[in-house]
Amino acid sequence: MARLVGGLEAGGTKFVCAIGTTPDDVRAEARVPTTTPAETIRRAVAFFTEQASGTPLAALGIASFGPIDLDARSTTFGSITTTPKPGWQHVDLLGPLRRALGIPVAFDTDVNAAALAEHRWGAARGVSSVVYVTVGSGIGGGIVLGGRPVHGLVHPEMGHQRLPHDRARDPFPGVCPHHGDCWEGLASAPALAARWGQPPETLPDAHPAWDLEADYLALGLANVVLVLSPERIVLGGGVMTRASLWPMVRARLVAVLGGYVSSRALGDGIESYVVPPALGERAGVLGALALAQAAGGLEATAG
Amino acid sequence: MARLVGGLEAGGTKFVCAIGTTPDDVRAEARVPTTTPAETIRRAVAFFTEQASGTPLAALGIASFGPIDLDARSTTFGSITTTPKPGWQHVDLLGPLRRALGIPVAFDTDVNAAALAEHRWGAARGVSSVVYVTVGSGIGGGIVLGGRPVHGLVHPEMGHQRLPHDRARDPFPGVCPHHGDCWEGLASAPALAARWGQPPETLPDAHPAWDLEADYLALGLANVVLVLSPERIVLGGGVMTRASLWPMVRARLVAVLGGYVSSRALGDGIESYVVPPALGERAGVLGALALAQAAGGLEATAG
Repeated sequence: MARLVGGLEAGGTKFVCAIGTTPDDVRAEARVPTTTPAETIRRAVAFFTEQASGTPLAALGIASFGPIDLDARSTTFGSITTTPKPGWQHVDLLGPLRRALGIPVAFDTDVNAAALAEHRWGAARGVSSVVYVTVGSGIGGGIVLGGRPVHGLVHPEMGHQRLPHDRARDPFPGVCPHHGDCWEGLASAPALAARWGQPPETLPDAHPAWDLEADYLALGLANVVLVLSPERIVLGGGVMTRASLWPMVRARLVAVLGGYVSSRALGDGIESYVVPPALGERAGVLGALALAQAAGGLEATAG
Repeated sequence: MARLVGGLEAGGTKFVCAIGTTPDDVRAEARVPTTTPAETIRRAVAFFTEQASGTPLAALGIASFGPIDLDARSTTFGSITTTPKPGWQHVDLLGPLRRALGIPVAFDTDVNAAALAEHRWGAARGVSSVVYVTVGSGIGGGIVLGGRPVHGLVHPEMGHQRLPHDRARDPFPGVCPHHGDCWEGLASAPALAARWGQPPETLPDAHPAWDLEADYLALGLANVVLVLSPERIVLGGGVMTRASLWPMVRARLVAVLGGYVSSRALGDGIESYVVPPALGERAGVLGALALAQAAGGLEATAG
């Protein structure tokens, strides 16, 4: 029988806390609004401590917004680092939870965790490499290769890649405080809202916003394909809930690559290459459970 | 004692064939000009057959120019696919060598092999992830992660990523037959030659060509850092033999990232983050030996 683990998705607007073993066996869940670090972390600690007092937890996984410090040799391992979110720079997430619970705690980015959950239980089962990209309040990407999230110097930050930006067609300067017109700066939900002066969900399908958006998403995904060559791309986030955007993004990704990468997946097979998350908005917190299982050496029992 | 293996670097201008165990123990080497597939492959087969008639080879590694088919389930596994090189489209490299030699044959891209050689014996020893980028007659990149070359849908083709291209500053349309102004189209040696009307090696250090070149190289490397977050980048190829280009590329890479990725490697440590290959032009053929050792299960003896 799979042992119980905890999963914490630490997001910019809410912390989602869960206890369970698999997507079909989540036994308790709580949502804590993201206010100050002290209050938010205290409430998360309280949830897990209370839950663990009933049935002990084998491990905890934390899937956090970033950038974060993933280097286990670093003195700030387990912290959020240079986030623009006020008050949350250089906040230690891992420390307080590990001290309170006294169990192994795994720590990774929310998008690496989502990629892991989709690989284990969702839209990327059976492939050896998957990239999970979310297009919402920002653009972020995680990578799972051979069953494991990819770290490295730090962790992927693919939302900040630079793309062609035709200022004659789109004079909008971009919203990224660091880079201006990087991918996130041009194509996240806040970029859409700022460029068009209204929330993206209020723009009709026929609005020229979507044409431009599809082009930027295709350019960014093409670079991901060219740099890493993943076997599947799972594309989530609020912006991707617009159904009419999907065929546009897929067609333009094929067009941008220009037939250079020889694979059916980038032709006839594009609909099963760039796919929506099977776990929807739950990918993050379920990924945190998957991280916990890896930390607790419980992967074989994860179903 | 390490068993003898063969390595073949199949390049667009020459095939380099070698027999050995490590960079310090290459026992025979031959260079065959790349003419027709039939003649070139016949001469490579002759070299290895002759060598193996003395001391048997445990395995052969092939490090090929691309794109190539790396999918072992494919009917065209071991072939070059959509290369623009005349006469070399859909040429089976692996088949003739395996049939002639009757030993395990490993097959990968020249740049994945170079990354593997630099990881095992060169400038990327001791890191968990390395990207090898070559800037010469084209731009190509290979990835080694956890000691293994990265495959996926196909293999990395990072030279074809799209970058910002300010046509007011640089009206040159690019030389890539597939994409025009992709990274390779803007910044390879043929792009430099076509833009400035003279071979890049004849351009003085003070020529504005190098300013633009450094910007394009930094933009492409920045995207590699953001998508994959490698622990080190090894940067080779003919264009990088220009010493004055190195400090420019490093400084601009740091500038493009704008401090967003928190790592000393992308600040004070940049000189040991983006480094020249320790194996120089031998990285490809030595990588082929390393591939052979992996294929023959001889990694532990590889030194």
